[in-house]
Amino acid sequence: MQFHQNGFTPGDPRVLPASPLARVHTDAVPDTVDVLIVGCGPAGLTLAAQLAAFPDIHTCIVEQRSGPLLLGQADGIACRTMEMFEAFGFADRVLQEACWVNEVTFWKPDERRPEHIVRHGRVQDTEDGLSEFPHVILNQARVQDFYLETMRQSPSRLEPHYARRLLDVTVDPADTDHPVTVRLERTDEGRSGRVETVKARYVVGCDGARSAVRKAIGRQLVGDSANQAWGVMDLLAATDFPDIRYKVAIQSAAGGNIILIPREGGNLVRFYVKMDKLGETERVAERQITLDKVIATAQRTLHPYTLDVKEVPWWSVYEIGQRICDKYDDVPAAEVGSREPRVFIAGDACHTHSPKAGQGMNFSMQDTFNLGWKLASVLRGQCAPSLLHTYSEERQPAAQELLDFDREWSTMLANPPKQGAEGESGGVDPKAFQTYFEQHGRFTAGMGTHYRPSMIRGGDEHQALATGFVIGTRFHSAPVVRVSDAKPVQLGHAGKADGRWRLYAFAGADEPANPEGGLRSLCRFLAESPRSPVRRFTREGQDPDAVFDLRAVFQPGHADVAIETLPALLLPRKGRLGLTDYEKVFSPDLKNRQDIFDLRGVDRRQGALVVVRPDQYIAHVLPLTAHQALADFFDGFMLPQ
Amino acid sequence: MQFHQNGFTPGDPRVLPASPLARVHTDAVPDTVDVLIVGCGPAGLTLAAQLAAFPDIHTCIVEQRSGPLLLGQADGIACRTMEMFEAFGFADRVLQEACWVNEVTFWKPDERRPEHIVRHGRVQDTEDGLSEFPHVILNQARVQDFYLETMRQSPSRLEPHYARRLLDVTVDPADTDHPVTVRLERTDEGRSGRVETVKARYVVGCDGARSAVRKAIGRQLVGDSANQAWGVMDLLAATDFPDIRYKVAIQSAAGGNIILIPREGGNLVRFYVKMDKLGETERVAERQITLDKVIATAQRTLHPYTLDVKEVPWWSVYEIGQRICDKYDDVPAAEVGSREPRVFIAGDACHTHSPKAGQGMNFSMQDTFNLGWKLASVLRGQCAPSLLHTYSEERQPAAQELLDFDREWSTMLANPPKQGAEGESGGVDPKAFQTYFEQHGRFTAGMGTHYRPSMIRGGDEHQALATGFVIGTRFHSAPVVRVSDAKPVQLGHAGKADGRWRLYAFAGADEPANPEGGLRSLCRFLAESPRSPVRRFTREGQDPDAVFDLRAVFQPGHADVAIETLPALLLPRKGRLGLTDYEKVFSPDLKNRQDIFDLRGVDRRQGALVVVRPDQYIAHVLPLTAHQALADFFDGFMLPQ
Repeated sequence: MQFHQNGFTPGDPRVLPASPLARVHTDAVPDTVDVLIVGCGPAGLTLAAQLAAFPDIHTCIVEQRSGPLLLGQADGIACRTMEMFEAFGFADRVLQEACWVNEVTFWKPDERRPEHIVRHGRVQDTEDGLSEFPHVILNQARVQDFYLETMRQSPSRLEPHYARRLLDVTVDPADTDHPVTVRLERTDEGRSGRVETVKARYVVGCDGARSAVRKAIGRQLVGDSANQAWGVMDLLAATDFPDIRYKVAIQSAAGGNIILIPREGGNLVRFYVKMDKLGETERVAERQITLDKVIATAQRTLHPYTLDVKEVPWWSVYEIGQRICDKYDDVPAAEVGSREPRVFIAGDACHTHSPKAGQGMNFSMQDTFNLGWKLASVLRGQCAPSLLHTYSEERQPAAQELLDFDREWSTMLANPPKQGAEGESGGVDPKAFQTYFEQHGRFTAGMGTHYRPSMIRGGDEHQALATGFVIGTRFHSAPVVRVSDAKPVQLGHAGKADGRWRLYAFAGADEPANPEGGLRSLCRFLAESPRSPVRRFTREGQDPDAVFDLRAVFQPGHADVAIETLPALLLPRKGRLGLTDYEKVFSPDLKNRQDIFDLRGVDRRQGALVVVRPDQYIAHVLPLTAHQALADFFDGFMLPQ
Repeated sequence: MQFHQNGFTPGDPRVLPASPLARVHTDAVPDTVDVLIVGCGPAGLTLAAQLAAFPDIHTCIVEQRSGPLLLGQADGIACRTMEMFEAFGFADRVLQEACWVNEVTFWKPDERRPEHIVRHGRVQDTEDGLSEFPHVILNQARVQDFYLETMRQSPSRLEPHYARRLLDVTVDPADTDHPVTVRLERTDEGRSGRVETVKARYVVGCDGARSAVRKAIGRQLVGDSANQAWGVMDLLAATDFPDIRYKVAIQSAAGGNIILIPREGGNLVRFYVKMDKLGETERVAERQITLDKVIATAQRTLHPYTLDVKEVPWWSVYEIGQRICDKYDDVPAAEVGSREPRVFIAGDACHTHSPKAGQGMNFSMQDTFNLGWKLASVLRGQCAPSLLHTYSEERQPAAQELLDFDREWSTMLANPPKQGAEGESGGVDPKAFQTYFEQHGRFTAGMGTHYRPSMIRGGDEHQALATGFVIGTRFHSAPVVRVSDAKPVQLGHAGKADGRWRLYAFAGADEPANPEGGLRSLCRFLAESPRSPVRRFTREGQDPDAVFDLRAVFQPGHADVAIETLPALLLPRKGRLGLTDYEKVFSPDLKNRQDIFDLRGVDRRQGALVVVRPDQYIAHVLPLTAHQALADFFDGFMLPQ
């Protein structure tokens, strides 16, 4: 954590100084805003927390509920999501409070006594080295609390407006200033029925599967239903089932099927219980499945183990439905070249999943983490509005791939296991089930997203320079040692949710000794050339790393890198007092034999430049000396300042 | 973190449910209390946070200042202190916010150009494996903030009463109920001069080096002064000194001497600068040493490096004084057998140090962590009041040892370095200086404390069963894997600041298979025998682990320990709902080759029982089968319920 840069301030450094631009939270929503976010779920709050970092952007977030969520709904937090939480500064708190999913066990009918279930497999949940964070489970309400705290402590002091029902959204392309008009109806006591009108530059619908914003822009969720009802319940229970604190997949002989997810606090546990097969056009509500029935089904499936339910804090019944929108904004495909988007949808508003793959909440947050920096860059005059097309272009195909995975997984979960040595009963082979689970670990960890080449994602020509930093995927952190103070840190944790680009420059073996080395030459280019992105896109008076945050990794150990000999760009003077930032230069963690050059396949002779977007995805891998290519890449979408 | 045990509760689980016994904080101090703590420094707040865990104890803490501390004073947090913070639940937040001291560098005059300083050594600050926590640096004000938050979020909802000056303390031995009377004068505006009288069962003076409580019980700080003035200042500065983010010891040719401590936030740094030699009877105040003079001395000593001071959030001048009280309570040595203590002193009130060994704040907090559980046990009727004698008996000799170390270290720092190949100039050999520093790493890490045998510290007869768990020293944590969910955890983190004893039972190689194994036999004894401490000292209606928290460590990996086959005492049913506690059983971390049996020298054939006090110190090591010895040990000071 860096603080006191502009002078000593007492108190909690997580509470950032309020900006003079911060607006006082008022009872009524503002008349005009830059961005109106509809919905305080994970997607909406990720976006709000991201935009709250920029007090020069006027953001407003509205929610239909009367206040913060208290319990229930989603709970799985993928490794990838933890990496994003780290960027927002609250991963450590989630790590403490959440339940860690360490292993998954698999249960099937005992071949000798098929009415009994028996453990037949156990796998590690997340493969070693996939992320520096574990897969954890925590109540969605608490995740939202952390975002709300981040917003409250941001320079903008942003708070939601609750009890607002969206009435309609209209876009007037002729109004180039605030083209979107939104009408909201208040539902809070004493003000119920009052209608408020907000004019916005951009509107983002994070308003769930029944999104009113989606309907307003004429888009539809399209997909199929598996016609299968499931019960989901959070339990406090006494049981002799020994794996109650593991993630467990259970298939019983009678067709029973349970996914069990251990929850935070040491006792709470979530059960997903397969219930009735539905008719072709039947809705789950018609079946009137009761809590008692869900519990009884779970108890039967667990046999011979007992389940004595003490408290049910939350439960629900749902049917699996995989649905997706073809496009995530208000611009028809045919008009992409001639019109910029003004209304976006994100999260459940544009894709719905089976909850059991644990993907809905995670994927929704990644939607708006993708959109957030783009909106901010355009609103702050750093990038051309055409950048905003890349949101739908990147996120829609990613969701489509996820749904394909999700469908296959749900089908597997809904089918009875094979029985008998020959598998004569048909159904899913338990071994195949486990193998599928293992293969798709990367997907469930949130690492399945791989963006395609675009204006903000370079080509693969130089991928060989850093084979472990795959262009289009998220920057895969690794341990390093900070040269200025020998602190062991994660390199990827330099990537905060602050809208900045990271340039991770890995030096060749000849540096730092060689004054003509590639990294020094890159520093000279960035500091001095008129073509330098740092010079072209950083405004007068901003800190030198305000737009591009250059970090260097050398090959020798930290004691063999003399910071006083390094280029000034790696020890930038910043802030009101002109103090030095000492956190830009790293060495491999040689003591623990975790050399980042080996771990990530970085070319030791040439080094490599890894360009990382504000949402932690790798935009490009280039030779350190490819100054022209670097300049061209940013010229493609950034605006000179 | 365990929560939801008594039913689901939404919100932040760090905010514990308020007890029905919690008292509303009033403007005036209460008339009668169980414990009155005088002083809101580190010692006072450690005690207050500890007692706040017990809402059945009425605690009051008063402070002379008008509100919480904002900056300055102590900053070093030893590894041992971090372990204690973990017990209080805020170590993770300190880890995030603090500056880590990773290495120390040593600078001396350049032999070729003695007017220049040059780096001559670099050592790791803390030896590998000494603690699972690093040595960190954080403003004392922030440490106090974390304690205040812990108190506010405790079941007692305890808050300090500020702006109270202590007038006098009197003890009336005839009053067996509330024998101590304290008079306080208010200093807050509008109430200034008002006198409040509090009657208390116990009073603890944590009121600093000029302690009024100490004077009231007629004790004195005795010791010597090195007659050496030092300046201390926190700086935000621009400098080309390359080690500005390391802990550094600098000796210059002209006799300059600096200890440099990097501080939190990435730029703040503390300088200890050697100033004037004082006359035999001279006080430092007489010298009128100015900030400008301290800065100028620092700049000279740093030559050829420059120091451009931008802001000085805090500075002070002090003289080194090592002083200590002969006893820490109000009972004269001759009356120990016939009278119980009612007034205690802790922290700077009974020992003062050179700040540069970084020990004052750390040692003060350990004082009251030692006292807290003892006071609580006596007030709650668990232990006889004679237990309270052990506070002074344990802490005074520990401080004396620290002072001996501290004196030697300060002398070394105050002397000029040897110069010339033959060291003809006299003074301290830089190499000897570094060697001394390294040897005493354990002391500065807070691991120097080794309590002697007493009613709460057993003999060393069975030390060979667990050579790495040294009786009388703090329980040295090691990584293990929790059997119920395969989570990698630190075994020592079971030790919370909740007043409970921990029984860490390490199983022999024959378990869990052997039904007659030592650990199973211990469980049977604890569960069934009329001599069992668990049965004798746990009250009817309390959770089975309310007084003794038994944890088992088996030798096989976690997948090879079937929890369903273990004794019920290792899966206790607890709380309003009778839910199972799944966090009692562990296996070694075989995957990472960190086998706790090897790491801590536990006898693999017999196993061992390690008895740990509520303050994390090891009280005893016994064979698993030494049931009688175990019973006898607790019979020595605990009261049957």
